[in-house]
Amino acid sequence: MPDQLLLAIQIANGYGPQPGSWRMPGVDPRSYTDMDVFARYAQAAERGKIQLVFLADTPALENDISRAVPNHSIDPLVVLTTMARATQRIGLVATASTTLNEPYTIARQFKALDVASHGRAGWNAVPTSLPAAAANYGIALPPRAQKYQRVHEVVQVVQALWGSWERDAWVLDAERRQFADTDKIRPVGLQGEHVAARGPLPIPPSEQGQPVVFQAGGGGNGLEVAARYADGVYANPFSIAEGRAHRDALRAAAVAVGRDPDEVKLFAGFMPSIAGSRREALDRRRRLDEVVDLDQRVGYLGSMLGLRLEPAQLDEPLTADQLAAARPSPGDPRAPHALQVAREGWTLRDVLAHGVIDYHPVVPGTAEDVADHMQAWFEAGACDGFSLAIDVYADGIDAFVDQVVPILQRRGLFHLDYEGPTLRENLGVPDQYGLDPRLTA
Amino acid sequence: MPDQLLLAIQIANGYGPQPGSWRMPGVDPRSYTDMDVFARYAQAAERGKIQLVFLADTPALENDISRAVPNHSIDPLVVLTTMARATQRIGLVATASTTLNEPYTIARQFKALDVASHGRAGWNAVPTSLPAAAANYGIALPPRAQKYQRVHEVVQVVQALWGSWERDAWVLDAERRQFADTDKIRPVGLQGEHVAARGPLPIPPSEQGQPVVFQAGGGGNGLEVAARYADGVYANPFSIAEGRAHRDALRAAAVAVGRDPDEVKLFAGFMPSIAGSRREALDRRRRLDEVVDLDQRVGYLGSMLGLRLEPAQLDEPLTADQLAAARPSPGDPRAPHALQVAREGWTLRDVLAHGVIDYHPVVPGTAEDVADHMQAWFEAGACDGFSLAIDVYADGIDAFVDQVVPILQRRGLFHLDYEGPTLRENLGVPDQYGLDPRLTA
Repeated sequence: MPDQLLLAIQIANGYGPQPGSWRMPGVDPRSYTDMDVFARYAQAAERGKIQLVFLADTPALENDISRAVPNHSIDPLVVLTTMARATQRIGLVATASTTLNEPYTIARQFKALDVASHGRAGWNAVPTSLPAAAANYGIALPPRAQKYQRVHEVVQVVQALWGSWERDAWVLDAERRQFADTDKIRPVGLQGEHVAARGPLPIPPSEQGQPVVFQAGGGGNGLEVAARYADGVYANPFSIAEGRAHRDALRAAAVAVGRDPDEVKLFAGFMPSIAGSRREALDRRRRLDEVVDLDQRVGYLGSMLGLRLEPAQLDEPLTADQLAAARPSPGDPRAPHALQVAREGWTLRDVLAHGVIDYHPVVPGTAEDVADHMQAWFEAGACDGFSLAIDVYADGIDAFVDQVVPILQRRGLFHLDYEGPTLRENLGVPDQYGLDPRLTA
Repeated sequence: MPDQLLLAIQIANGYGPQPGSWRMPGVDPRSYTDMDVFARYAQAAERGKIQLVFLADTPALENDISRAVPNHSIDPLVVLTTMARATQRIGLVATASTTLNEPYTIARQFKALDVASHGRAGWNAVPTSLPAAAANYGIALPPRAQKYQRVHEVVQVVQALWGSWERDAWVLDAERRQFADTDKIRPVGLQGEHVAARGPLPIPPSEQGQPVVFQAGGGGNGLEVAARYADGVYANPFSIAEGRAHRDALRAAAVAVGRDPDEVKLFAGFMPSIAGSRREALDRRRRLDEVVDLDQRVGYLGSMLGLRLEPAQLDEPLTADQLAAARPSPGDPRAPHALQVAREGWTLRDVLAHGVIDYHPVVPGTAEDVADHMQAWFEAGACDGFSLAIDVYADGIDAFVDQVVPILQRRGLFHLDYEGPTLRENLGVPDQYGLDPRLTA
């Protein structure tokens, strides 16, 4: 097991992952378009020595924003370039779809971000699964197998383009009047079934050579992509057992293609809500829930617990009879935790405020509670680190940085400072330039 | 004729448009990848109240960089976002190919830049004519007619996406718990022969509504694109007569589609080399020419003048016999000016240092010389302004801003300050949001 955990922080829309984050105290409701806000959050995360900022992305208006914040940023490249200008060490990672983008565009934009940030960029290489995003590009989603075939092609073309300048091609010898050694800048000339590019890409190596590749989702297909190309994987386990199973499978898949399993780091999604006490944290989350349809959520909670629940019971706990009859639904991995919370006697409103049906594990509580959860997962081998989805960025990032990070550091679980200027150094992943030679041998 | 001229400044590769700019005194040879340098140049241009920075672009390594700088930047969006963070007023415009990009990507990235910069973005909408760029996208260039058909489709889809949120759709009413009025955010559902997008684009209007559209090149096809969609046109006339002809044609084409011709501004490409005297300016350009194959240029100069010239004559002027025999080639619009310079008695090396075979008119001389040239062109109706390709950015931008701008201002030819915070205000072009209703009526 690695000595210390790694931290990624999601700063997508400018508000936070909770739908009601835009209405919270201290939040500028126009944060979505205000790059000063994004710069400030990146600086706060860097103060906490967090390894990287991660912007998930889908090129579409994915969710209903009549009451809720949009899921994603206005544009990942604009946001990450803004953050690059405001920080010195933190890594800058975003999703770009392999289904909807051509590899030359991805290669150029992420490599430009990488040299602009002096070696801090990363690319989360994922296919698109949202039909609305495909429709924005005038196409229907291809079948899954074809989409994943294209992922492999796109990543290989992108990495080949990244390596199309030899490391010492940029000569800059003023006396000999030589700007570059063009014998060392060569086309890649790759032609796949789905994509192709001649190259070269006219960008020299960055301080880390080229951007780090990440992967997310996709089951067995995704695992194969991660094993072959990724140094970081964003995963969504709901329990330690799920996290261990995913991480073990990932490491085995990496070994199967000849890699050292320690090269591939699994980041588990995690949503802390930090306050002075669990009660205060629940009140914070109840305020966030004001834009949410709780009646519908009560119904869903019932289905998770094998009960028929009505909105009228929102401010009551489960009865003894209900608790006796409850059976966690085998179809929802969050169900056992929901039942455990319900057994503690909270009202249904508070059970929901615990985030039991959120899309990552939630810890509402003190900084110690949050640190305890992270330590337990990490020491059980459920992850190499966490991808933090902090409820409200405006005060939540500071709370994490100022309260949780020092606890993790005191416990020896988190680094005291950045290891170096590049993302590769700070993740502890190996140098890479161009295609991985192990994959082309 | 408009009262005052407009200025765009090209800051493409970080060095300057001259191949040898990377070797000049005070130039950091690593400027190509150093965003601090780009930020500084944008700030200098803003000090001079220049209306906009323009980054031409082709997604390929277009030129031989063994001795010369690359033609373009590492990535226009990364560079312009960097500049947006470093400035408050100057406009930020770049080329994005309508041949190689999907409209959703262009719409999103330029609109994101537009809101991030508080209404200062512009998009130069041009098809790609370089086969190597198409090969980077795995395609062959389509026939010209088809490429221009696609330009129309892409611009219309992009502008429709830009307008897919009604101006007041972003409600942000915390009390009523309403983030956005989703009845006012609608798909665009456009389907052309070449491109399509469903939308909506999840970005609210910027302070100027949406980015300004620019156009460049393309002859009659390009003129039609400019007349229908553009507020600014980048042109390359070599003489006042050529500039007037282009501008008159552009204005007539705008009128023909029902627009006010003053909505479309023609920027003439112009390369000043500013020094204490013409001799000093020529020496500056001779140093720039050290990386250039002058033997080959002498031969080309001869073909422009209807003479057979040899490299041995490089440091001699034309003889009386040669001058008597010289006939400007009708195939090169730069030839009359080349002959005029040669008649002044300069050596061939100095004739070439005058930039007579450069791709824009060159004025090597004092700030007064440069201002005189600009005044003459502007007052003759050859342009609405200039797109400055200043020989070496490192000291040339400051020289232009500190020496030429005050002369133009004293002569009443250039504004004393920005008219407002948006690019539209500073260009004096009308508000636009979504598709131009005159085109869809």
